[in-house]
Amino acid sequence: MSGILDVIIIGAGSAGLAALREVRKRTQSFVIINDGPWGTICARVGCMPSKALIEAANTFYHRNTFTEFGIRGADSLTSDIPAVLRRVRRLRDDFVASTVKTTEDLGDRAISGRAHLLGPDRLEVNGQILCARNIIIATGSSPIVPKPWNTLGKPIFTTDTLFEQENLPARMAVVGMGPIGIEMAQALSRLGIDVVGFGGSQTIAGLTDPQVNAVTINLLRREFSLNLGEKAELTAVNDGLRVQAGDSEVVVDGVLAALGRHPNISNLGLETLGVPLDDHGMPPINPNTMQVDDLRVFMVGDANDQAAILHEAADEGHIAGINATRSVPVCFTRRVPLAIVFADPSVAIVGCRYQELDDAKTLIGEVTFDNQGRSRLGQYNKGILRLYAETDSGRLLGAEMCAPAGEHMAHWLALAIDRSLTVPELLRTPFYHPVLEEGLRTALRTLAAQLPAGSESDLASCDAFNSEALD
Amino acid sequence: MSGILDVIIIGAGSAGLAALREVRKRTQSFVIINDGPWGTICARVGCMPSKALIEAANTFYHRNTFTEFGIRGADSLTSDIPAVLRRVRRLRDDFVASTVKTTEDLGDRAISGRAHLLGPDRLEVNGQILCARNIIIATGSSPIVPKPWNTLGKPIFTTDTLFEQENLPARMAVVGMGPIGIEMAQALSRLGIDVVGFGGSQTIAGLTDPQVNAVTINLLRREFSLNLGEKAELTAVNDGLRVQAGDSEVVVDGVLAALGRHPNISNLGLETLGVPLDDHGMPPINPNTMQVDDLRVFMVGDANDQAAILHEAADEGHIAGINATRSVPVCFTRRVPLAIVFADPSVAIVGCRYQELDDAKTLIGEVTFDNQGRSRLGQYNKGILRLYAETDSGRLLGAEMCAPAGEHMAHWLALAIDRSLTVPELLRTPFYHPVLEEGLRTALRTLAAQLPAGSESDLASCDAFNSEALD
Repeated sequence: MSGILDVIIIGAGSAGLAALREVRKRTQSFVIINDGPWGTICARVGCMPSKALIEAANTFYHRNTFTEFGIRGADSLTSDIPAVLRRVRRLRDDFVASTVKTTEDLGDRAISGRAHLLGPDRLEVNGQILCARNIIIATGSSPIVPKPWNTLGKPIFTTDTLFEQENLPARMAVVGMGPIGIEMAQALSRLGIDVVGFGGSQTIAGLTDPQVNAVTINLLRREFSLNLGEKAELTAVNDGLRVQAGDSEVVVDGVLAALGRHPNISNLGLETLGVPLDDHGMPPINPNTMQVDDLRVFMVGDANDQAAILHEAADEGHIAGINATRSVPVCFTRRVPLAIVFADPSVAIVGCRYQELDDAKTLIGEVTFDNQGRSRLGQYNKGILRLYAETDSGRLLGAEMCAPAGEHMAHWLALAIDRSLTVPELLRTPFYHPVLEEGLRTALRTLAAQLPAGSESDLASCDAFNSEALD
Repeated sequence: MSGILDVIIIGAGSAGLAALREVRKRTQSFVIINDGPWGTICARVGCMPSKALIEAANTFYHRNTFTEFGIRGADSLTSDIPAVLRRVRRLRDDFVASTVKTTEDLGDRAISGRAHLLGPDRLEVNGQILCARNIIIATGSSPIVPKPWNTLGKPIFTTDTLFEQENLPARMAVVGMGPIGIEMAQALSRLGIDVVGFGGSQTIAGLTDPQVNAVTINLLRREFSLNLGEKAELTAVNDGLRVQAGDSEVVVDGVLAALGRHPNISNLGLETLGVPLDDHGMPPINPNTMQVDDLRVFMVGDANDQAAILHEAADEGHIAGINATRSVPVCFTRRVPLAIVFADPSVAIVGCRYQELDDAKTLIGEVTFDNQGRSRLGQYNKGILRLYAETDSGRLLGAEMCAPAGEHMAHWLALAIDRSLTVPELLRTPFYHPVLEEGLRTALRTLAAQLPAGSESDLASCDAFNSEALD
């Protein structure tokens, strides 16, 4: 490890490991440095344990449909929260083990320790100075917790600690109604915990479409209390924690802080890179090369504060891994934006968000699922899907939804948007019966009806044939 | 109604009503004739009641995951089959009512009776002769039941009668393991009925891919007995019905005949059209115009024995409705083939089927779901998805699967196939984490690895950039 390495990767999370995969293909002169436990945020405290909890919670909640289906005995069901959490940890350990396996054979090229940059080509770790032609920064992120909360002497959880609990309190507040807050508040509530949600703004789950936002709020309020628009303040009281927000006040036994995550860049030494840093201490990063300014330094994953989403982190690590082993960085096209919140119904945002639309050039299509055939059969007939299309071209631009099977329809829509497909083109594909995608088709048809020169048929003619020929 | 009508539609099912919708837009000189109860096969005895039963059955079966999730009390759950069936009928009545509403305002242009063709421009109904410039035949189909079975004096059900029962027998055989047989056998078994399935061939559910077929059979055999490859013979015995197939023999209390459906064309008078009929008594029908030979007669939906699938029936009615009101029929492009069997995991066939492939020009990609992340979290980690792509172009051709969320992935794949997209193009779209579509991505990557000149990245370069540039 003496001399100058080709690449140093700081951080062995999802982005760092994706970088490692590419680096290893091209050079053996590298090290990967990790601070704290090995294993990714995703596997340890993020996507995987949260979804394990959600699956159990949704399954338990589903008992509310049993009587209507003709299934007897739902009242006898109970959620054994310690058992639920044990399973979450069992699965998590398995997923963590498989991510840790990636670095097991690296020997002393895998370093446990906290790296401090000393410049764009060197850093210090465990008292040793390492030099490299390329550095990939993938230090991840940490949950935000207001400092005073830690001195209250009461149970304040984050997703770092929630899944570690043997049991959970009977009364909980979830503070922060972004994607993680919504997922966890609904899951905890569905497991039988008395949950109150607090969100600082009137929008939740990352939604920007006011109608989708309103439907989502209404649906969630059927399950738990939701206080929006005021900042939550915590006070320790005798029998727990008082959470106050505006006029609302509730006493709970524990609080889950879901106020977002901040990139792990404090004391990293970014100021030694010699490039300007913004107000948050972040250098300029090219999202197509992951390069910091024009340095041989790359910054990827949650650390760069761009999109704390696993598949984007993996892409960024992948791009940096390739570019750190090339003389001239390649510029990569990023994917169509896709964000999914694993609520039920699932919240998803695809492509262009509502707030980014140019009203004058956009058509909006919509469907609600209250009366949709298939979802009525399964008792999941609730939610809304809104589609955005370009008026002139009929091209689909984006979608926001809170819809049953939303996570699946979001992938269909992402493919459509990626390929710049138009509403008439999309209506030519098959929609089976009875499926939830028939709701999606309804929304497409409401767009088609607004398009100029619409054909009277969803089907294309074999002949060189246009709508006029039909009349 | 004297004189010559513009259009007569025979049959008010899904195809006939789709035709009616188009005809009404263009002329008021029409009648629609329906034999038997009004309301479509889909709503009365097909898609809708079957899916209502399946949703209840799957919900009840899901109790087997409860202990592992940490939910206690699953043993107390029972399925109240009479209540399950009452709900099926309540929903069915609702769906039937909404299809019947379509014809309510037609007055004497809606005729109840059995039509007999007298030629390509006339027919008899209720003793009256009606003449029309165009006739649309949409007489639907009926379940096939071997004649001797009806004389056994024992409970032989079809989907026409199954949902009408107050209760169901404790031991049932389902004879016929096509799509309907598989759906119903699994649902009845999941509701707690002791089910034995009998299929005459070694393939089930319409599958043609031997590996997908094998996985599907293995999964179903964990739930109920499945006898394949021999014809089932029924005999009445003291305590029920003996079903024999090869060496297998079982005594049950009732049999569901799921041997397919035959088109309702006997005694319809197709021989009066003056065009050649095939061995099944079927005239030649153009699937792009729905026209019978060069007559002003159109034959649509199950009646033409082409694809007894609702969305195809609706398309056919739509095409015939347009063409029956035009001097020159328009030729329409039909949709990418899509068939879904609502088993769990869902079976789906999209685009080109395995048996239609040219081995020499086809690559096969595959994923199994046994170890797939998301599906492990939810305890639905079973199944297989196989993709077919054209070797030279990398274009996706088709897929067969028995996979969790298969019905959703099938729609994604249908869009991809419809747009002639290649595997590398498909890999550029986002796949969120953790979702079942990541399994689909794995299958795409196994295809990509077989393609010549594959890029080292799923991502596209912004520059005019190819895989060579990466090395």
